[in-house]
Order: sequence, then C-alpha cells, then structure tokens
Amino acid sequence: MTSSNKPALPVIRRLPKYYRYLINMQQAGEKNVSSSELSRMMGTTASQVRQDFNCFGGFGQQGIGYKVDTLVTEIRHLLFGDGQPLPTILVGAGRLGTAVSQFLVRDANGYSLLAAFDNNPELVGKTLGGIPIRHVDELRSFCSQYHPQVAVLCLPREGATQLSSTLVEMGVKGFWNFSHYDLSVDYPQVMVENVHLGDSLMSLGYHMRNL
Amino acid sequence: MTSSNKPALPVIRRLPKYYRYLINMQQAGEKNVSSSELSRMMGTTASQVRQDFNCFGGFGQQGIGYKVDTLVTEIRHLLFGDGQPLPTILVGAGRLGTAVSQFLVRDANGYSLLAAFDNNPELVGKTLGGIPIRHVDELRSFCSQYHPQVAVLCLPREGATQLSSTLVEMGVKGFWNFSHYDLSVDYPQVMVENVHLGDSLMSLGYHMRNL
Repeated sequence: MTSSNKPALPVIRRLPKYYRYLINMQQAGEKNVSSSELSRMMGTTASQVRQDFNCFGGFGQQGIGYKVDTLVTEIRHLLFGDGQPLPTILVGAGRLGTAVSQFLVRDANGYSLLAAFDNNPELVGKTLGGIPIRHVDELRSFCSQYHPQVAVLCLPREGATQLSSTLVEMGVKGFWNFSHYDLSVDYPQVMVENVHLGDSLMSLGYHMRNL
Repeated sequence: MTSSNKPALPVIRRLPKYYRYLINMQQAGEKNVSSSELSRMMGTTASQVRQDFNCFGGFGQQGIGYKVDTLVTEIRHLLFGDGQPLPTILVGAGRLGTAVSQFLVRDANGYSLLAAFDNNPELVGKTLGGIPIRHVDELRSFCSQYHPQVAVLCLPREGATQLSSTLVEMGVKGFWNFSHYDLSVDYPQVMVENVHLGDSLMSLGYHMRNL
C-alpha cells in the first residue's frame, strides 16, 4: 500500500467507523463489499467512500468491490500500526478519571495505561483498575523515566491548563482530554482528542427541549 | 428573544462550548465580551460568532459587544429550558454503564436518572450510583408508568439494535448512545448523540502512529 497524500482530519475520524463496520461484516462471514454498501452503513456516498480509501492508496479494484479481509487488515494497520500499545498516563483519578480509566483498561484500543496521578492525598497510594495512583509531584520524574506518549486528562479546567504545559514539555505528544479546557488552542503541535461528554449531553438536551 | 429560524446542527453543537466559556468569564467577574474575543476562545471567526447568535435572535448590540450575564442567561435557557430535568433511563449496567452513569449523576446537566436496566441476573437488584438496576423485562411496564424521554445505551451492538426499537415505540425521543450501533441511521425522527469513545481513542492512535 502506498500513501498518496496526507489524509484530512475528517477522513481519519471516519476510519474507526469503517473499521467497526468491517469487523462486523467479517464476523458475519461476508467476503466482499462494494463502496455503495459501505456508504449506506456509513451514512455517506459511494464516491466519498472511494475518495476516503484513495487517501490510503485505494485498498481495492474499482468495479469489483473490496475484499473485507483486506480492508480490515489495511485499516487495522493504519489505526494500530505494529500493535505496540502507546504508553499512556491518566491525570486526575477522581470519579471522572475512574470512569474514563475503564475505557482504557477494558478494551484493546492500542493503549497501555502505565500510571495514574492525582493531588488528592486520599487517592494517592490507592489503585485504579489495577494501576497505582501517584502524586502529581512525581509526574516529571515519572515522565523522564517512562516516557509516556499519551496523557488522559480528567481534571478540572484550572489544573489542566498548567499540567498540560508540563506534559508537553516532558514529551507527551497526544492528549485524550476530558477536562473542560480546549487544549488544542494552545498546543497546535500536539494531537488532542477533546471529549466533552457534558457538551454532548447539553446538545441532546437542547434538541429534546426544542422538538 | 425571538428565534429567527431553526438553527443548524453545528450551531447547536457549539452552544455548550459558548456556555462553558461564558460561565468561566462570569466567574472571573467579566462583564462584557466582543464577538472577536469569543471567536478567539472558540477557535472560530468573529463573523461566525455573530452568525451563530443571530440564529437565536442576536443576544446583543453590534459594535458595543455582548453582556456576559445576558449571554449566560439566554444560552442557559436555550440549553436547559425551565430547568426541569429530562426523565432518563440507562440500559446496560455493566462496566461501561457504571462509568457513564457517573456523568449523569455527578453533574447538573439537566437529566434525572430514574432507573437502570440490565439482563444480567447478577446485576439486577443492585444499585448504580444510588439508582436501582432492574431487569430489562420490566422495561415496557416501566416506560408505560414513568415515561422516560431519554435513554442512555451502554450495551453491546446486538442488544442495542433490538432494544432501541422497543424504546422508540415506548415514547423515548432521545438517545445518548455509547453502544457501537449507529442508531440515527434507523430512527431519523429521534435525537441521537452517538458517543464512540473507542473511535476517539483510535483516531488519536492513528495520529500518534503517523506523526
């Protein structure tokens, strides 16, 4: 596979969805899929599907459709590389952090949670899904030693502003951000996935109240 | 305030973000804000901010900026109406459901969690953040009696397909969907907020592996 040009963000965001659909098809024993079948599942157009796949070199021959196995293998490789999990830390081990850590430890999403950090003395020393909770004061020394690449932020807005700067300085290159602080504005060079569950609930609430 | 025309989905999705920023400004004691200040925080343009606000009748006088208090009040009213919480149920009380329920019970997001449901006999009868877990067999009778408007889906894909049809039939009008099943494709008439945390992690992983 040759990568023709750097794919745009919306294309990358659709990859996991393609991957989920294709895994379902593979499990159902389906061998081939056309771009129009995929487009129906994705809620997009067949032309969009072909364009998306062309960003990664094509994946198949137009006219005869795509092989499900090939698509799964290629997209898995794009998403998970050689399968080596990304060394990850979680900052903020309160209720939100505990909830979020479940998503990291229960699924094989390609991340390896090394440690959790908090500044609450009542949490430090405990564990969170089998992972030790350390004091945030140990953050720098931990990063120097273990070089986490991803940080999951589950702390209040004020804390996030200051800590993210330290983390970027210590070599963290990606954030899974649940705090109410839009990191990407300040650090255009790092990758940020902002997950604002509260925003999602508020949008739904707006719709419900304005049906 | 007069609502000029039905606002588009992206505008509605930006409302919670405006709301968060404005609450921060209000707490910091700021009285006025210009569209260009807001646009910097939102990562958009001043013209976009004015257009967004015009969807809801304006909120202020061009040239002299907006009053923070007025914006907070108006947007809060849009998002939360009269403050009456939306009667809500959660289906799937496993690890994912337990994690997600935290977001519903810990924040004042405008939802009232009435009950949780599961088909696992080991979970039925227990509680989840103080909310009783019932057997899914009780779902219909519960809905007839308590008329939940929103359902939070935290169950596997297969279960979600079937259950969502029952829930729509029983009058549920909105879904906060964590299951790997894209509800909106089948029920265009109901409001769906799909939250695919796994997709978010996979997108971040792609970026990290292709820096």
